[in-house]
Amino acid sequence: MTNSNPKNRQERLDRVFNPQTVVVVGSKKIDEYNWLKNMSTFTGKLYSVQIDPNEIPGIEELGITNFKSLKEVPEPIDFVLCAVPRPVTPRIVQDCIDVGVGGVVLYTSGFAETATEDGIRLQEAITKMAREADLMLVGPNCMGIYNPKVGVRFGQDQVAGVSGHVSFISQSGSQGSGFGLECQAQGLNVCKVVSFGNGVVLDSPDYLEYFAQDPECQVITMYVEGTRDGRRFFKTLRDVAQRKPVLVWKGGQTPDSARATRSHTASLAVSSTIWDALIRQTGAIPVHGLEETVDMAKALLFTKPFTGARLGLLAVAGGHSVEIADAFSMQGLNVPALTEASYEKLASFFSVIGGSFRNPLEGGGNMASEEKVIDILRILEEDATIDAIVVEMGMFGRRNLNVLERRVKTLVEFKQITTKPLWSCWSGGVTRVDPEAQQKAALELQEGGVPVFGSITRAARAMGKFVRYSRWLQEQ
Amino acid sequence: MTNSNPKNRQERLDRVFNPQTVVVVGSKKIDEYNWLKNMSTFTGKLYSVQIDPNEIPGIEELGITNFKSLKEVPEPIDFVLCAVPRPVTPRIVQDCIDVGVGGVVLYTSGFAETATEDGIRLQEAITKMAREADLMLVGPNCMGIYNPKVGVRFGQDQVAGVSGHVSFISQSGSQGSGFGLECQAQGLNVCKVVSFGNGVVLDSPDYLEYFAQDPECQVITMYVEGTRDGRRFFKTLRDVAQRKPVLVWKGGQTPDSARATRSHTASLAVSSTIWDALIRQTGAIPVHGLEETVDMAKALLFTKPFTGARLGLLAVAGGHSVEIADAFSMQGLNVPALTEASYEKLASFFSVIGGSFRNPLEGGGNMASEEKVIDILRILEEDATIDAIVVEMGMFGRRNLNVLERRVKTLVEFKQITTKPLWSCWSGGVTRVDPEAQQKAALELQEGGVPVFGSITRAARAMGKFVRYSRWLQEQ
Repeated sequence: MTNSNPKNRQERLDRVFNPQTVVVVGSKKIDEYNWLKNMSTFTGKLYSVQIDPNEIPGIEELGITNFKSLKEVPEPIDFVLCAVPRPVTPRIVQDCIDVGVGGVVLYTSGFAETATEDGIRLQEAITKMAREADLMLVGPNCMGIYNPKVGVRFGQDQVAGVSGHVSFISQSGSQGSGFGLECQAQGLNVCKVVSFGNGVVLDSPDYLEYFAQDPECQVITMYVEGTRDGRRFFKTLRDVAQRKPVLVWKGGQTPDSARATRSHTASLAVSSTIWDALIRQTGAIPVHGLEETVDMAKALLFTKPFTGARLGLLAVAGGHSVEIADAFSMQGLNVPALTEASYEKLASFFSVIGGSFRNPLEGGGNMASEEKVIDILRILEEDATIDAIVVEMGMFGRRNLNVLERRVKTLVEFKQITTKPLWSCWSGGVTRVDPEAQQKAALELQEGGVPVFGSITRAARAMGKFVRYSRWLQEQ
Repeated sequence: MTNSNPKNRQERLDRVFNPQTVVVVGSKKIDEYNWLKNMSTFTGKLYSVQIDPNEIPGIEELGITNFKSLKEVPEPIDFVLCAVPRPVTPRIVQDCIDVGVGGVVLYTSGFAETATEDGIRLQEAITKMAREADLMLVGPNCMGIYNPKVGVRFGQDQVAGVSGHVSFISQSGSQGSGFGLECQAQGLNVCKVVSFGNGVVLDSPDYLEYFAQDPECQVITMYVEGTRDGRRFFKTLRDVAQRKPVLVWKGGQTPDSARATRSHTASLAVSSTIWDALIRQTGAIPVHGLEETVDMAKALLFTKPFTGARLGLLAVAGGHSVEIADAFSMQGLNVPALTEASYEKLASFFSVIGGSFRNPLEGGGNMASEEKVIDILRILEEDATIDAIVVEMGMFGRRNLNVLERRVKTLVEFKQITTKPLWSCWSGGVTRVDPEAQQKAALELQEGGVPVFGSITRAARAMGKFVRYSRWLQEQ
């Protein structure tokens, strides 16, 4: 989409991402009126377009006004979600053009990604229509837009009415959906997600440009399998990465996985090494997989770049203190001995029976007292040999959720006074906390500015990468 | 512990691991009678020893008979759990010797691991007493024994009344506890866990020898930080690894984490590279972290060694098909094109709208029909270019647990007829299934012989390592 001027294009995309009127075309009983239910949290006006008389009563039962055509909707339409059968798509696209909608998401799939003659021909037809009319078309073969703030969703498990600062651009619907749900489960609110599928009109660079100027977005993350215009992709990435951190997860990095990207989004594979080098040259950060994408987003959202790598590590138990020290030191970070002054202060109150304070610190029974925890943290704050602090959130069973609540409060309070980067992490493995309690704790920690990572290992990997990135930034 | 003959020692250890009478010494109200509650699932006779008159009523309220001394217990004692204050331990150890108990777990900590003069002296005294009397002493500074079959536990979250085939030897209590809970959450029953702490009498080689001859144990896993007698450790490991697979996770692999192992179990660090090489020479398998330990245990429990690395991968959605192919092919495994015959069969029923069958297979809408899923699996079974099959369990929301139940049934049925290794994996990230439903599904899959891994990436890493191990075995 390069035929309109950039500023105008950003404004027009903003209308699509923050609509006041949404119309779902083609919602059906067999899908349990899925798309209309997805939009049930939308804060603006929601309408349906459906011509099948058998479908209309079910739609009206949901309390939604149905029209027979987009042309009948009696007000300006900002956003159309099109879920009609493949052969009908050209007619809906034409209606969108005629009515002058803000933009349309084509959920419908079965185009070039199927490598069938019919699919390719139909995709070409739709693309030509949309480009000639300068229609903001998202997709086809995609889930479209998730903006929790205005309640535009593409899944009923997605939370609405919240607002975060990380956005995700995804060529894949399932990864787009996965990113939102993973952030949610980890207590991290997202800004916006766009799943753009085959990207025939609006491609990843368009979304990069949009999020670059979106004041609500601080960190841009993306999942790409390929791009129609490599030159434009890398040029845009370079421009945008100067303004905001961009994390790029590339799907299809081996000849074998290329068989999947070809049939998924008709993209070719690029080897992992070449790709990572190209991405790094632009100033963006290559990441691999959903977990690393979310972890690095957290690192960037909650921490200013830091290059000092001497860590104070506080674990809850002995084996975990060994594990946390192994994990961080194997990432090239240091876990130094503390100063004698710190050891003297610690020795005055810290019980070493079932505990240890050499660094890593093994809290043991000392962690039963939040006063002791805060005293330990203050000593790490004052110790000049320590650049950053990591606290293991530990193994809170279902029976001691009150300890978890107190610990969250302690860390959020300490965050107000510390001048050092402060991270936390769960112990790892399958959660042993009630998942809802864990999500709530994560949300509170992160609202208090303390990122919490899914495991010791994940925190260590994220910090290793973050410190290397910070050092690279410093050299620029 | 080398002063009794090995066969006799195994029999005596078996009495401790499978006791008929357990006595908890020193259970207290301030700990909420934790140790007595841990043992509430014990299938044999449970008694308490406590001299403090303030504590006794609370113990009796639990319905447990209390005695003032081990000497008063009117029958042979197989297992003593000792949770008394540090200075009292020598007296209890002496009582154990005098009474002739099967063995004693010293939960009490505060010995050599604190590097205090008192602690070291007390540890030496206890060690001398136990060795001279040939007392089977586990610990001190440990959680002791978990045997779900007989309900001997060291935590109230631990399941009882089940029995599995993987045992864990842990120098760390928290890792020992973590292993059991992680297996449980992943639907994997454990055989036995021993946390042996400072290991002053019974050391890791003793437990290795015991599990080597334990007919219920098929795979031995262990977490070690150090060993008193390196020569014996490696000799035993070599002997045992010839008989059963042994996974070794070493804590304290860097100078920084050595600060933790010194204070935790008074062990020195060995560099990761040297250690891994030494372990490999014995025929055991080095692993890193809890997740890899559990994953490799699953691989070994459910799969005979296989060296063919051409995989048929079935994912639920497009982005996931790319991700699964990336993950496995980046581990050096192959995801080949299928035969023309397979493609013809697939083309006859497989919808490619929102799906693809090139391999990786993207099930898409086809996965709504278990008949189609089983047909797909049968085609992979018959395809001679495929050595092993991996199925993504997918993103079952809380609203479609019935689909999950059907899928489990399909895979377990297919397992009965397939001649090829069959693995499955969750999509990864924080669980989107109800945790209890996920645990139940995992248990059923694994009872049906199909291991299920925590994420695509974890399955891929485990299979990469498993195939390399299988090739190494073949070369022997």
